Amino acid sequence: MAAGVNLVVVGSVALDTVETPKTRRTDLLGGAASYACAAASFFSQTGMVGVVGTDFPEEFKKIYNRFGINLDGLQICEGKTFRWAGQYSGEDLNDRRTLSTELNVFETFSPELPDTYKNVPFLFLANISPDLQLHVLDQIKNPRFVVADTMDLWINTTRKSLDKLIGRVDMLMVNESEARHLTGETFLLKAAKGLLAMGPKYIMIKRGEYGSTLFSKEKIFLLPAYPLEEIKDTTGAGDTFAGAFMGSLARGQKVDWNAIRKAMVYANVVASFVVEEFSVEKLAKISLSDIEKRVDRYKEIVQF
Amino acid sequence: MAAGVNLVVVGSVALDTVETPKTRRTDLLGGAASYACAAASFFSQTGMVGVVGTDFPEEFKKIYNRFGINLDGLQICEGKTFRWAGQYSGEDLNDRRTLSTELNVFETFSPELPDTYKNVPFLFLANISPDLQLHVLDQIKNPRFVVADTMDLWINTTRKSLDKLIGRVDMLMVNESEARHLTGETFLLKAAKGLLAMGPKYIMIKRGEYGSTLFSKEKIFLLPAYPLEEIKDTTGAGDTFAGAFMGSLARGQKVDWNAIRKAMVYANVVASFVVEEFSVEKLAKISLSDIEKRVDRYKEIVQF
Repeated sequence: MAAGVNLVVVGSVALDTVETPKTRRTDLLGGAASYACAAASFFSQTGMVGVVGTDFPEEFKKIYNRFGINLDGLQICEGKTFRWAGQYSGEDLNDRRTLSTELNVFETFSPELPDTYKNVPFLFLANISPDLQLHVLDQIKNPRFVVADTMDLWINTTRKSLDKLIGRVDMLMVNESEARHLTGETFLLKAAKGLLAMGPKYIMIKRGEYGSTLFSKEKIFLLPAYPLEEIKDTTGAGDTFAGAFMGSLARGQKVDWNAIRKAMVYANVVASFVVEEFSVEKLAKISLSDIEKRVDRYKEIVQF
Repeated sequence: MAAGVNLVVVGSVALDTVETPKTRRTDLLGGAASYACAAASFFSQTGMVGVVGTDFPEEFKKIYNRFGINLDGLQICEGKTFRWAGQYSGEDLNDRRTLSTELNVFETFSPELPDTYKNVPFLFLANISPDLQLHVLDQIKNPRFVVADTMDLWINTTRKSLDKLIGRVDMLMVNESEARHLTGETFLLKAAKGLLAMGPKYIMIKRGEYGSTLFSKEKIFLLPAYPLEEIKDTTGAGDTFAGAFMGSLARGQKVDWNAIRKAMVYANVVASFVVEEFSVEKLAKISLSDIEKRVDRYKEIVQF
């Protein structure tokens, strides 16, 4: 692949309005692809596949550039950028309510990969329709490790395509309620077994403030979240987790249980940074060495 | 101290009726002291301080004996044993509702320690009124490590005594909601800081299926719960955690950060056994070597 891109992320790019009990922020850089690419960029050369409208602010492209994100796969279409507005309540921001969604250019988005991405080894299919995820997957010649996310909407509306997709990825990365919804199992271990039976070699369950759990057919690995004294905005935390995970994995030589566990440590730590500010603002302020320092601190907190 | 008792547990002894979505069991051996002493008995010589009525089944005393629990501190009073009935709902038993509480002999319980307990180094004050907890604490001459639990009832009704107690213990061990209730802080780290400011050197927050978090003024340590495929009854899980913690700590030479972290590993693991059956039935079936095996498995699951 050209341009040294070794990880491609496909997902939404959005302008977000976020309300928390303390603050309201408008026109923030958002969307799963923004968070995942920013997080991955600390570790790997990351290419973004997404779409924005002609209203997409030039300053946000500059932010992407400062992260070193390759934008060959970012389409600019006539019209407005996807917009999302959400409200968080509770001091720990546990309740999220979507106030509005304007799909705009995202409505007719068909992700076409530039040739330079088609031999990429690592692919993260963030939460978009399973048909689009499959369309992207079909364009990659011989991917080494493919991870997909999804959401309740697709579980309810396009289950057939979603099942097909899940059968073709190396890892499904979903949150706890999605894992339950997909399998009808309340117990996480049973849900994970059900998901493994659908095809992926690995299942990663994101559990927000409670961390994350990795499953293979033989093994389990659990990480609690890095404990924080205050969080400002949890938007994009799961996508940041996924991006840092994929970036860290793409940086290494091997993709095995140990490499995946190590990538999960970085995923937890980078996600712990992103929630300390709105949008990707905190990620823009830190370096890999800040991440490494927190990894060391994290080890003290969770290793015995 | 005589009889080799190096840990004393004071708390309720109860006859429980437990309803889960699948099963209803009556007249089970229950109460915080039963669970904590059974769990501690794998590691230390444990003495129980509590009260039962003349109706207390002989077979339950035999169960205590098989665990090797010292019963010098167990009072037998004219009347009926404390009874509790509760109902769990949800496949993961997350919702608990108390159906009835009959204090019976527990209503006038005044814990008087036999002389053989008065020089004991380790003391666990399970959840009873703070005045009774203080009364027990006053009878121990020079305790090395004292842990107390409490509940919302005492936070609401006897706050002054509770604050006095908290100021005198080495560790307060409460669940997440109690920590928030005691401090008015939503964020666990802030709540823990608030509790540390009340006097204890350590705060242990029990978080059910999400594990437990240990705080000192300088450090934090987090353990996720051992993942289980199915749980039958979560009654007494927190008391089992506390008992195994204290037993493990009392077994060792030192009481420092490392010893406490190690005790927390055992606490998590023994608690993971107790919820697999009703009452202390699972604990009655396992040995220390089963516990050690699960500790090894636990390490694989949570260590990187």
